[in-house]
Amino acid sequence: MPNAFDARLAARARGAKSSAIREILKVTARPDIVSFAGGLPAPELFPLEAMRQAAARCLAEGGAQALQYGPTDGDLALRTAIAEQVTASDAAAAAAAGLPRPRAVTADEVLITTGSQQALDLVSKLLLDPDDLMVTENPSYLGALQSFRLHQARFATVAMDDDGAEPGSLREALGQDPKFVYLLPTFQNPTGRSMSTERRVQVSAILGEFGVPVVEDDPYGALYFDAPPGPSLRSLQPELTLALGTFSKTLAPGLRLGWVVGPSAVLARLTQLKQSADLHTSTLSQKVALEVMRSGMLPDHLERLRSVYAERRDAMLTAIDSYFPPSARITRPSGGMFVWVELPEGVDAARLLPIAVEQEKVAFVPGEPFHPNGGGQNTLRLNFTHTPSDVILDAVGRLGRVFERALEALPA
Amino acid sequence: MPNAFDARLAARARGAKSSAIREILKVTARPDIVSFAGGLPAPELFPLEAMRQAAARCLAEGGAQALQYGPTDGDLALRTAIAEQVTASDAAAAAAAGLPRPRAVTADEVLITTGSQQALDLVSKLLLDPDDLMVTENPSYLGALQSFRLHQARFATVAMDDDGAEPGSLREALGQDPKFVYLLPTFQNPTGRSMSTERRVQVSAILGEFGVPVVEDDPYGALYFDAPPGPSLRSLQPELTLALGTFSKTLAPGLRLGWVVGPSAVLARLTQLKQSADLHTSTLSQKVALEVMRSGMLPDHLERLRSVYAERRDAMLTAIDSYFPPSARITRPSGGMFVWVELPEGVDAARLLPIAVEQEKVAFVPGEPFHPNGGGQNTLRLNFTHTPSDVILDAVGRLGRVFERALEALPA
Repeated sequence: MPNAFDARLAARARGAKSSAIREILKVTARPDIVSFAGGLPAPELFPLEAMRQAAARCLAEGGAQALQYGPTDGDLALRTAIAEQVTASDAAAAAAAGLPRPRAVTADEVLITTGSQQALDLVSKLLLDPDDLMVTENPSYLGALQSFRLHQARFATVAMDDDGAEPGSLREALGQDPKFVYLLPTFQNPTGRSMSTERRVQVSAILGEFGVPVVEDDPYGALYFDAPPGPSLRSLQPELTLALGTFSKTLAPGLRLGWVVGPSAVLARLTQLKQSADLHTSTLSQKVALEVMRSGMLPDHLERLRSVYAERRDAMLTAIDSYFPPSARITRPSGGMFVWVELPEGVDAARLLPIAVEQEKVAFVPGEPFHPNGGGQNTLRLNFTHTPSDVILDAVGRLGRVFERALEALPA
Repeated sequence: MPNAFDARLAARARGAKSSAIREILKVTARPDIVSFAGGLPAPELFPLEAMRQAAARCLAEGGAQALQYGPTDGDLALRTAIAEQVTASDAAAAAAAGLPRPRAVTADEVLITTGSQQALDLVSKLLLDPDDLMVTENPSYLGALQSFRLHQARFATVAMDDDGAEPGSLREALGQDPKFVYLLPTFQNPTGRSMSTERRVQVSAILGEFGVPVVEDDPYGALYFDAPPGPSLRSLQPELTLALGTFSKTLAPGLRLGWVVGPSAVLARLTQLKQSADLHTSTLSQKVALEVMRSGMLPDHLERLRSVYAERRDAMLTAIDSYFPPSARITRPSGGMFVWVELPEGVDAARLLPIAVEQEKVAFVPGEPFHPNGGGQNTLRLNFTHTPSDVILDAVGRLGRVFERALEALPA
């Protein structure tokens, strides 16, 4: 017999399923498993000492404000610091691209969120009625798709090449009059692909032509291994874009601290929605992050993250080149956290996962759930930031054996 | 011209308005205003030193876990500690009421949320389709109504007497087949009223008879001034009840840390919804709260809160008895944070607010927005926990003058 709650579920809740990634993370928390599954930062690189000092300063004599209710749109000093950082990064990207310097971002164009995930929920609440059409890259970030699905969206998808979303495919999708477009132009999750400056200019021109709102998700932009990424879509189309940023990959995901940059009138609407979502984001998290920013340690810390993660990316690509079957196609990301693998048609990555975990003690995320309208059974995502290089080399070797055996078992 | 976003708003977002309380809080942050408006704890009573020590321990060597992603349903050790605390308080309440000891609550019956506000959002997502009927007390908590309204609920309301929700009125509302009932049985927001043990038993029997799910919101239960409150509705109807608790009033609202106790199958559904809402609640907040619980300082801290807040409640009631017009009717709460004031019919509290703020430098919250289906223009809510007793005495006197003048201006 269904319980009193099950008999009364809202339509949106009837189809809600747990994210495949989160379920896998549970299994792979076992210490004997090497997990390439999660999008986890390297915990040994967390700036524990800086965080401890920051927390001590926030909670020192007179620090009651760090424990009290705060404004829904976030701590003004933190919003100001983020606006300054975004303005500086906009200016640098424009200069490198030979483009005019964009207008400075102000604090009232910044909204603090409880991680980027909350921003996705708020944007969905703002724009999505049941059965509304929206546009994403194919594949796209699973956590975002989960949020859009909960709000009962339908998807038109944009094909990708090595430069990210394809302009022709984007134009076609926009022609279907979607509510909004969700894009990850920089070290995309799950593919690791990044738009060139030329592609960013092209894409933003098309977006402007159709006048469709854009949600630009950029958790990984600071994790570049060669050169900083090109200009943000927001800096090229400020009136159309809500840009999501986060401290999760640069400082610590456990703070649950993200932000949205966008037109202040749109942020005012998101702020109203945030009020009934959680009143405001943890004041303690906000004050601690602000103290860390003020301490001036972030640039060196990011430099260290980039250097360690680049070495791990190299280890993973080297191992893949040595151990994966030659028919496996992969991306070669110049930043971020992920390598994307495409096995020959007919291989089902979801069926290989339990084999890899049980027989070879290696986990990954099957690629199918990243495809909004299905497909991609032969794809998978590998994270390289959470595992030391020597362990990567060994575990990729074991994973290669799983793939080799799967290919041998394919009908000739 | 509307911006690209405004032209594409979802139906739920078109009517979203900022909470009157939050808007007022902005104005009354001015240091020259005495604000009885917010539901703010006294910041001078925050256990800053205990929090600083707890944060230092969480972020000591080996503390990377306090900064990493965590499980969506919350830190297992924290959920276990909360389950133990709830079990102990259930047993004490049952013993005091001469009722059998309820079954112990286990960790899988506890879900950690980003404040109780998030729990309200998740419950709304779980149960509310547009135009669904639900039941609340009249008046009820504004932040909850805001969340239910965003999910496009309609309301049937339950009248209250000094003992809380009236059984006859509840029975009538349940007869309309609502999706669920939202109740604050203990030191209710906004009225400060609390159900007697007898009323709790009566109400839970009626709920069981109709088999309708109940959301029992209890942020104030630990802030009793005479005796601890009677048994929770959850302990009397465990299969039908989601009980919301929070650290906001006992430890610090800035942590944004709440919990839901309920049937594990229902919590599993809420956990799926939480995944796309914010992945999980701040790990740092969770670890800090757990450390504080483990330090053993909470019982003494709560004793101190109860004693200071009781003194402030006394100050407010004494001042009201001296300075308010005799035709003003008030509640005399035995715990919590609020006194509820009913002025004679024809007085509009919302019109008195700007006069009180500008002429007498005192703020309150007009009562009308707490009424789900309108009404209550002659009511208002006063908070007594955020203001020292001597300031309360003086400011209530000034507020009395505003009310006196308003009554004089009424047509005879």
